[in-house]
Amino acid sequence: MKRIGIIGVGIMGSDHARLLTEAVSGAVVGGVFDLDPARATTVAAASRGARVFTDPHTLIADDDIDAVLIASSDATHEEYVLACIAAGKPVLCEKPLSPTVEGCTRIVEAEHRHGTRLVTVGFMRRFDPAYLDLKRMLTAGTIGVPLLLHHVHRNPAAVPGLPNSALITNSAVHELDITRWLLDDEIVEVTVHTPRPSKQASGTRDPQMLMLRTASGALADVEIFVNARYGYEVRCELVGESGTVTMDAPTPTMLRHAGLGSREFAADWRPRFAEAYRRELQDWVDGSGGGATAWDGFVATFVALSCVAALESGGRLPIHLPEPPQVESQRVVRDSSW
Amino acid sequence: MKRIGIIGVGIMGSDHARLLTEAVSGAVVGGVFDLDPARATTVAAASRGARVFTDPHTLIADDDIDAVLIASSDATHEEYVLACIAAGKPVLCEKPLSPTVEGCTRIVEAEHRHGTRLVTVGFMRRFDPAYLDLKRMLTAGTIGVPLLLHHVHRNPAAVPGLPNSALITNSAVHELDITRWLLDDEIVEVTVHTPRPSKQASGTRDPQMLMLRTASGALADVEIFVNARYGYEVRCELVGESGTVTMDAPTPTMLRHAGLGSREFAADWRPRFAEAYRRELQDWVDGSGGGATAWDGFVATFVALSCVAALESGGRLPIHLPEPPQVESQRVVRDSSW
Amino acid sequence: MKRIGIIGVGIMGSDHARLLTEAVSGAVVGGVFDLDPARATTVAAASRGARVFTDPHTLIADDDIDAVLIASSDATHEEYVLACIAAGKPVLCEKPLSPTVEGCTRIVEAEHRHGTRLVTVGFMRRFDPAYLDLKRMLTAGTIGVPLLLHHVHRNPAAVPGLPNSALITNSAVHELDITRWLLDDEIVEVTVHTPRPSKQASGTRDPQMLMLRTASGALADVEIFVNARYGYEVRCELVGESGTVTMDAPTPTMLRHAGLGSREFAADWRPRFAEAYRRELQDWVDGSGGGATAWDGFVATFVALSCVAALESGGRLPIHLPEPPQVESQRVVRDSSW
Amino acid sequence: MKRIGIIGVGIMGSDHARLLTEAVSGAVVGGVFDLDPARATTVAAASRGARVFTDPHTLIADDDIDAVLIASSDATHEEYVLACIAAGKPVLCEKPLSPTVEGCTRIVEAEHRHGTRLVTVGFMRRFDPAYLDLKRMLTAGTIGVPLLLHHVHRNPAAVPGLPNSALITNSAVHELDITRWLLDDEIVEVTVHTPRPSKQASGTRDPQMLMLRTASGALADVEIFVNARYGYEVRCELVGESGTVTMDAPTPTMLRHAGLGSREFAADWRPRFAEAYRRELQDWVDGSGGGATAWDGFVATFVALSCVAALESGGRLPIHLPEPPQVESQRVVRDSSW
Repeated sequence: MKRIGIIGVGIMGSDHARLLTEAVSGAVVGGVFDLDPARATTVAAASRGARVFTDPHTLIADDDIDAVLIASSDATHEEYVLACIAAGKPVLCEKPLSPTVEGCTRIVEAEHRHGTRLVTVGFMRRFDPAYLDLKRMLTAGTIGVPLLLHHVHRNPAAVPGLPNSALITNSAVHELDITRWLLDDEIVEVTVHTPRPSKQASGTRDPQMLMLRTASGALADVEIFVNARYGYEVRCELVGESGTVTMDAPTPTMLRHAGLGSREFAADWRPRFAEAYRRELQDWVDGSGGGATAWDGFVATFVALSCVAALESGGRLPIHLPEPPQVESQRVVRDSSW
Repeated sequence: MKRIGIIGVGIMGSDHARLLTEAVSGAVVGGVFDLDPARATTVAAASRGARVFTDPHTLIADDDIDAVLIASSDATHEEYVLACIAAGKPVLCEKPLSPTVEGCTRIVEAEHRHGTRLVTVGFMRRFDPAYLDLKRMLTAGTIGVPLLLHHVHRNPAAVPGLPNSALITNSAVHELDITRWLLDDEIVEVTVHTPRPSKQASGTRDPQMLMLRTASGALADVEIFVNARYGYEVRCELVGESGTVTMDAPTPTMLRHAGLGSREFAADWRPRFAEAYRRELQDWVDGSGGGATAWDGFVATFVALSCVAALESGGRLPIHLPEPPQVESQRVVRDSSW
Repeated sequence: MKRIGIIGVGIMGSDHARLLTEAVSGAVVGGVFDLDPARATTVAAASRGARVFTDPHTLIADDDIDAVLIASSDATHEEYVLACIAAGKPVLCEKPLSPTVEGCTRIVEAEHRHGTRLVTVGFMRRFDPAYLDLKRMLTAGTIGVPLLLHHVHRNPAAVPGLPNSALITNSAVHELDITRWLLDDEIVEVTVHTPRPSKQASGTRDPQMLMLRTASGALADVEIFVNARYGYEVRCELVGESGTVTMDAPTPTMLRHAGLGSREFAADWRPRFAEAYRRELQDWVDGSGGGATAWDGFVATFVALSCVAALESGGRLPIHLPEPPQVESQRVVRDSSW
Repeated sequence: MKRIGIIGVGIMGSDHARLLTEAVSGAVVGGVFDLDPARATTVAAASRGARVFTDPHTLIADDDIDAVLIASSDATHEEYVLACIAAGKPVLCEKPLSPTVEGCTRIVEAEHRHGTRLVTVGFMRRFDPAYLDLKRMLTAGTIGVPLLLHHVHRNPAAVPGLPNSALITNSAVHELDITRWLLDDEIVEVTVHTPRPSKQASGTRDPQMLMLRTASGALADVEIFVNARYGYEVRCELVGESGTVTMDAPTPTMLRHAGLGSREFAADWRPRFAEAYRRELQDWVDGSGGGATAWDGFVATFVALSCVAALESGGRLPIHLPEPPQVESQRVVRDSSW
């Protein structure tokens, strides 16, 4: 039974605590830290008596904590991930690995020096049954070589005053990662187009259209719209040389009422990706290595920041990734430390 | 250019007048009769100056009327259809051909004596592109021999005080006809099951479930629900030995709004079957003979009244159709009189 | 950590072993028995070293087995469930609880004498997210009082020589249970209609249409077709006084290829209900009591056998359930023995 | 009864002849010209004895021809349209009005000098029930101000050697027109992105992604893919500030067979837009003026050629339309000459 320490139990961290306690095999929540001690106490109590820590580094170092889940604020990710690597403990870090390229680089290098994989980044869509089905169908070959990939990513409402860049770094970054994962290809160029912003967006340039080119020549576009009002929706279509696959995730029930036949949309990303989060945690606890690596986390931040630059410049921006670290340190392996 | 006389220009008759005037090739409205002279005058004026008749038999007999469309009250159908046969004029009669078996019999016999086909009954669903597509797919053989046929037929609201029988004779009669047409098979047994009635139905036994057996052994069920509230909907599924085909007719647009992804239902049968009505009229004007025959009209009334008897008895009721008239008189032929 | 003993590790039992080992929190497989020792050994090994038992009663009695899951052949269910009750251990029994009314009665009475709930019957659909969504929508009140419920239940192919009754007792029994659960109502009358059998069914009367009436007056029909060829499909529509809800479970991907836009059907019930099985097990391990009770198991067998009688007689058959046992013994409670 | 002369009876022209003869009220085919006299003779015979002309200008000038439909090769459109204007006869010209901006300009100016509207351009999508439904829903205001418009336009296969520009001038030109019509807005900027071409495209840069900006600030993207293989498909989504509307046109039947639930795509544009063509012709014959004007035809060619330039340059290209002609000459009016 693996004992997981959780750093940060806001919306995401408390959800992870609940899943580890109630729906994942082979793990328990061993410890909880949060800046808000009351919140930590509440979540620990709901986690069958996990311990409350008053310092995150104490939690990381504790002998009764086998692995660490980081769901604290973005700016703190680097510090805690580096501490986990230093302690030789597997760590699942919510995205972003770090909001800066430099932070991501330091993590990749630290893990590289450690020599085996310790870091997993929480791009949970890689575990979503719908995306997995899409990847299975691409791999089956029926639609042929992929040419185009259309993404739609909509949230009902964003906080007022959201910076323009946040649509990319917070939201579209999921599409950046899933595009790489799905196509097994790197993004090498980006252009960002924006219409007049929605009046609902309180000054933010929302929506935005990202146009991404991959190394092999595919074109992926992303509509990101965080004040779409009607609900949360993620869908895409992959267009190949001999067919296409669309991916959505309709609710299984359809209501006929008041002149309409209707299906409900999720209110936010959590019900839509609940199963993805569960599978992500189970995979991590099993040490199966299916999650995004530190390098994936680096690339996500690198490409996202390039898209932000392209948003600001308005033009086509080539993206020159550095060389990935040596294969040895980034191999997807069952971690020996578990 | 064929000149059509219309008897009865209520909802159905005025719609037919409009279609003949605006959307059918090769015909004009030549004359209009209605019990309400003002209504006749209005429709005639909208029909590019058709004449107004004050007597339906004068209309039928008029030399400038080539063919007659009957959309008057059900009880009058027999009289006018017999007059058209006597005048040797093609007649398109709204369903029912006659509400009584005896009335239908007299029409079938009169047309038989006349010797060639003159009568068409307005079971417009036979011209609906969706049903035609269903029949095409059945004929293609992919789903194999048909075993089951599930019909759903819903109206938003019926007039209070509707007799229980009217659900069958007014509404489900369309399914009785289309089942015969689709399967090219006769209905030989019926059971009617009813749940507690909807409180919205003001005392009428609504909804009802008809369970029909055909001569070749297929089973067709019909849900008829005339106070379904949410809208008008007709759909079905045909189940064969190696597959099924479902038929619905979704609107081509889907709205995403307020948490729902929704498609609109028609408010009543007219938008749903607008194209069927147009094609029915065009086929009739062309003399193509694709519409239901007098015999089809006879069978529809005969089977519908059997279903009413089964509703009242609650048990399984065999249906013994008389022999159809000789082939000669009911052949589907381009009418020589056009 | 609860240690589960599994009796019978064929298709269902080995699936349960896998789920308990890999996807359920708070339990491990503690022991395995199967008539085929090699199969037991294989499954035990895959279950992180569970013990292999050579006798089911030894397994039930073992102090290191906290609860028992029965997935052996139908005829053995009663014996093992009674042994679990005698041992005071919680037991999850695959449906049917017993294939005979007498067997079910003996179990209900034994649990009644025991005094608290020990028995859960594996009607997993009660945990299916799609059915739960349907029940949520019914409960929300939007569609009003339920009047009709249309079920479709299709399997691609059955073994040749399947008895006519097996369509009801093996397959449609799921609809019998879910109808009671969904409507919170008892089935009080049944008629079975059958079309000509499919030639693919090798002599079995397949498909069948069950027409069920509930105590409150709703009507539920069930199409059960176990040689439907095209794939596995379960869907339904619940029709209320002011709207309807349909339930299906489409795959989240749609392929456009070779002239068709298509979604895949599951090959059998396991992928369709994989999540229901997982949630059923988690609920049972948590002692939450959401599963079907012994009384539910009794009613399922009682009504299924009534449907078989109605199939044979061809007529309407009233169903007179005996009085349920006293509330005390069948209350859905978190079991104190866990 | 209006007598229509048709110039060019290839695929489009013969379809128009059939519709005018069989499905449009108030018109007959009065005359036919084609470079291939045999083809003209065949179509004229099928058109209830229309006359065959051996010279298009003779047809235009003939006193028994009330109006002219031009479906000859693109390069000849200008000549015949100008002749119709000179003769004062209404003319329906298949798109493009002229393949050159200069040709379109000469037509607009000639009609302007004539003083009343004579020219209609065959952008039939404006009469498609699905697009009309989309426009109705936009106008209803539920989705708010439009921000984005995503178009997909796919053909199964193009002729080998198709020039890159033809994807825009032949195919995407429909989206250019429908975007203007739907949004009631002008296109003021374009960027074209292209992925690696499909190997099925024999050297043509296919598919292409057009990114269009409108005067009011909306962004419309067009995927045009003329070797999509799987079938013909046109769909779009209009994204507003408070909701979206998607438009597709699914067939009303769904087949369940061989593991798949599938709907058929049209083989080409003709079945998909059959009803749009019929309504376009009926509107034109009625003189209702709903079709695209000469100015619309000018803009379509002007913007399409700008998109071709943007395809070649790879960058953002502003589009500076000249001033439209005075309102008087381009008003949509029932033509007095009919």
